[in-house]
Amino acid sequence: MNPTSLPTLTAFAASPDRGRGLARDMAVRWAFEEVGQACDVRLVSFSELKEAPHRALQPFGQIPTCQFGDLALFESGAIVMQIAERHAGLLPADAGARARAITWMFAAVATVEPAIVARESALFTEHDRPWHAERMSLVDDRIRVRLAELAARLGTADWLDGDFSAGDLLMVQVLRRLGGSELLRAHPVLVAYVDRAEARPAFQRAFAAQLAVFTGLKGRPPAP
Amino acid sequence: MNPTSLPTLTAFAASPDRGRGLARDMAVRWAFEEVGQACDVRLVSFSELKEAPHRALQPFGQIPTCQFGDLALFESGAIVMQIAERHAGLLPADAGARARAITWMFAAVATVEPAIVARESALFTEHDRPWHAERMSLVDDRIRVRLAELAARLGTADWLDGDFSAGDLLMVQVLRRLGGSELLRAHPVLVAYVDRAEARPAFQRAFAAQLAVFTGLKGRPPAP
Repeated sequence: MNPTSLPTLTAFAASPDRGRGLARDMAVRWAFEEVGQACDVRLVSFSELKEAPHRALQPFGQIPTCQFGDLALFESGAIVMQIAERHAGLLPADAGARARAITWMFAAVATVEPAIVARESALFTEHDRPWHAERMSLVDDRIRVRLAELAARLGTADWLDGDFSAGDLLMVQVLRRLGGSELLRAHPVLVAYVDRAEARPAFQRAFAAQLAVFTGLKGRPPAP
Repeated sequence: MNPTSLPTLTAFAASPDRGRGLARDMAVRWAFEEVGQACDVRLVSFSELKEAPHRALQPFGQIPTCQFGDLALFESGAIVMQIAERHAGLLPADAGARARAITWMFAAVATVEPAIVARESALFTEHDRPWHAERMSLVDDRIRVRLAELAARLGTADWLDGDFSAGDLLMVQVLRRLGGSELLRAHPVLVAYVDRAEARPAFQRAFAAQLAVFTGLKGRPPAP
């Protein structure tokens, strides 16, 4: 990697979340902020996502991608892992603790997120079907089971395993997709966990940066 | 880790796949075989999965878990990653190629698998609803999109990025869940990819070991 070039992240030019920091570039922005590494952001339109130049970087036509010099990666979990390998602060130095944090990274994206994304998918693609309400009840039941299990494990701890790690970062981003829904509010320990993460200065800087894309204030000073 | 003890994997005592090697212990067994590391397997009943001793190892009440001495991990992706860190043969030595292989590990479990598991979930929990067929058509459409994208990326290559890696191992396990469905058969390059992986001696040894649990022949010599 050219030492003078910054890693380049792709994000939605017009995020469907309207700046709420739920698109998957947010985890990568947050990870860069946690380790104090600046990055360039290249905005991509919905039509560009499905075209060949972007598909060469991301075969499924999604964001984010991240280029570290000649190295082009996709999948927010893998990009966060790469940032953690290049910088201290996202994974513990101890080999065992590191392996357990990686376990939580996979649990976030492979076990908890699919249940939550299934809900968004049902809201988006099935809302006009006569059986929508009946199916949403099945979808929500699955989320309730996962959240109860996660809350039981977290208990009174601040983070999932010792200090804050990339596992918490990815898990919190997954939980944030539930927004203010009653599903999350049913578990005060999970609400407090998300609040604790959102209070981190690195989260706040990353959130402001992605919001600025939506508001069009990127690069301008805040209003007085 | 006690150097005389083997890693201990958990698997279903009675796998719902009837020995077809689709349960998530299969990826871990296969990874151990690829690197030539023996493991002990502890079988767990469905009721034990949801009880406190197993929940202490796996908060979501699933298999597999894997104990490496004092280190207890869950999530098949994370366990395969740990095996790859302890042994050569599952991730490339070159840092960039290694990061790309990790990208495919995440793509397998976070992007491709959820679409396929959604189908199994619909077959299991919604098959008696009057709208089942209508919804299956939506579910299958999402799988078709993912498979077409994956097939386009794989093209005429043997593996997703250079040599066989843990990314291929996890992706093939995900595709194998589709069994002989027309969804997979629509993409001859993906069928050939799965066949190529299943022809690996390590796959075959792992498959035989999990099948022996189902047939009750574990530890017995093969029939003459």
